[in-house]
Amino acid sequence: MKILEFKEDKLILIDQRKLPLVEEYVECENEIEVSEAIKKMVVRGAPAIGVAAAYGIALSKDPGNAGELLKKSRPTAVDLFNSIEYMLKGIREGRIAKEVAKEWHKKIIEKTKKMSEFGASLIEDGENILLHCNAGPLATGGYGTSIGVVIEAWRTGKKIFIYVDETRPRFQGALTSWELRREGVPHKVIIDSAAGSLLNNGKIDKVIVGADRIVKNGDFANKIGTYPLAVVSNENKVPFYVVAPISSFDFSLENGEGIEIEERDGNEILEVCGNKIYGNGTKVLNLAFDVTPYIYVEKYITEYGIHNKVVEVEEIWKNMKE
Amino acid sequence: MKILEFKEDKLILIDQRKLPLVEEYVECENEIEVSEAIKKMVVRGAPAIGVAAAYGIALSKDPGNAGELLKKSRPTAVDLFNSIEYMLKGIREGRIAKEVAKEWHKKIIEKTKKMSEFGASLIEDGENILLHCNAGPLATGGYGTSIGVVIEAWRTGKKIFIYVDETRPRFQGALTSWELRREGVPHKVIIDSAAGSLLNNGKIDKVIVGADRIVKNGDFANKIGTYPLAVVSNENKVPFYVVAPISSFDFSLENGEGIEIEERDGNEILEVCGNKIYGNGTKVLNLAFDVTPYIYVEKYITEYGIHNKVVEVEEIWKNMKE
Repeated sequence: MKILEFKEDKLILIDQRKLPLVEEYVECENEIEVSEAIKKMVVRGAPAIGVAAAYGIALSKDPGNAGELLKKSRPTAVDLFNSIEYMLKGIREGRIAKEVAKEWHKKIIEKTKKMSEFGASLIEDGENILLHCNAGPLATGGYGTSIGVVIEAWRTGKKIFIYVDETRPRFQGALTSWELRREGVPHKVIIDSAAGSLLNNGKIDKVIVGADRIVKNGDFANKIGTYPLAVVSNENKVPFYVVAPISSFDFSLENGEGIEIEERDGNEILEVCGNKIYGNGTKVLNLAFDVTPYIYVEKYITEYGIHNKVVEVEEIWKNMKE
Repeated sequence: MKILEFKEDKLILIDQRKLPLVEEYVECENEIEVSEAIKKMVVRGAPAIGVAAAYGIALSKDPGNAGELLKKSRPTAVDLFNSIEYMLKGIREGRIAKEVAKEWHKKIIEKTKKMSEFGASLIEDGENILLHCNAGPLATGGYGTSIGVVIEAWRTGKKIFIYVDETRPRFQGALTSWELRREGVPHKVIIDSAAGSLLNNGKIDKVIVGADRIVKNGDFANKIGTYPLAVVSNENKVPFYVVAPISSFDFSLENGEGIEIEERDGNEILEVCGNKIYGNGTKVLNLAFDVTPYIYVEKYITEYGIHNKVVEVEEIWKNMKE
């Protein structure tokens, strides 16, 4: 089964809103349809929306305007902006847009494979690992970031066990569970707020998350609920790892305060699977992400290796630019 | 609207599983029906299940056996055991069971009123308060514990604002929102894992929770998700208060390790409002409670006052026994 594919001048996306129970595809023929697919979360996950946006530009007749449109589809993940920039640079250099988009996608696949290998080297046989939200193949268009790590550890013979939190309000845990089942990785689903007592009772050896944006000092934005997990991991001396490609770093921001946090439609919370569970007019605050200060992170894992501090990643990035 | 009423030899319970959208009642005519209502969470909340159990014994022809049956209905909340003990003692002393049950209920109403007043004295005008799970009239058969406090603060003119977390998997936040609306207290609903970033961003001045069982050293069991809230509150220097009647204390346990934590049916997580959201055979861990160590608690509020340490409560309890 394909997750994200560019074929016959169409971007074909598995509809992540309907998984894991229904496997349906959405076809996008232009940048407007791609932008809608990102907004409505047909495709989601920082690297995956970057890949989708790259193809969106390739499908457009006006790459500059397409870039502006796609940039506005979601505000927090920086991969999106970096992929658009990469596309526009390639096009300015006279390259064929589709080729540039395929190259970006291929790079994401290679990078997530490398991250998975680096991350897996930190996992010991027999460990219990907590995953938050979904950062697997669905979220990346590649091998995945945090899920890539545990799948790679499992494939290389480490007998691990995964706790998957459901990740309200959109239940991305169901996507993670689906991806782990495809690989045969043993796991249990828990509610988000159950992670605390498992951490406190020694049931979890490591917490691994992806990131939507990592800034200069190491603060990072990720799915809402990442921050309290990081605090409670720290309180219980459980290592907390962040896995993300360099394209998810934003060295233009000094610290996490500058990251724009998307607020999504309150009905994502007030209605569950189409059922209203609150009275009419109930007010709601639906923040899609939170910011975790760097002090809680033990390791950052990129396609270049395992880093203790983000300044190491910035050095690599500067050398790449030169 | 009545929430829990004893009338014409029946215990009439509002069906909390159907609130807030549907207001239906369940009538219990004997201890078996009361026990089922507790198990299935028609009635829930530590003090409320204690009151229901008291009436269950009053409806029974064999109080001793009824006590044994009702004790097994849910394992974590100690109010249940204390109310049963109170009933059996009254009956042994030759009193009419219904009168003893009404007395227990009346005492809960008076105690929750007092707790609400003591708690409200700690709330400042203009504060933002986070509530977890539901500990209002529905949960107590009285004024409520944590919700009682904020309702009392609101009624006495303090302009407060409440963040209500949804409390997966059973969405007791919808009950809290319903109770706050009845009183006109302004509030917003959030997902459980959003509380962290609000605490980190100075949006919350106080966190107030109820308790299912508080032990000798001050550790306490409460709805799953209480522990991570307490840790993150502490990390952000936000006061964390626990409100519970003395009947929720268990001085027979030295610390929280001895508290039995109920594990409930996994379908509470795997199915949402009757919709399956995971593949067949997905494994799940559904712990209903967690234990919060005393180090995170700033104040305990009982019907006797505001306490910094549980040893003060134990002194009161010992004097009551003498």
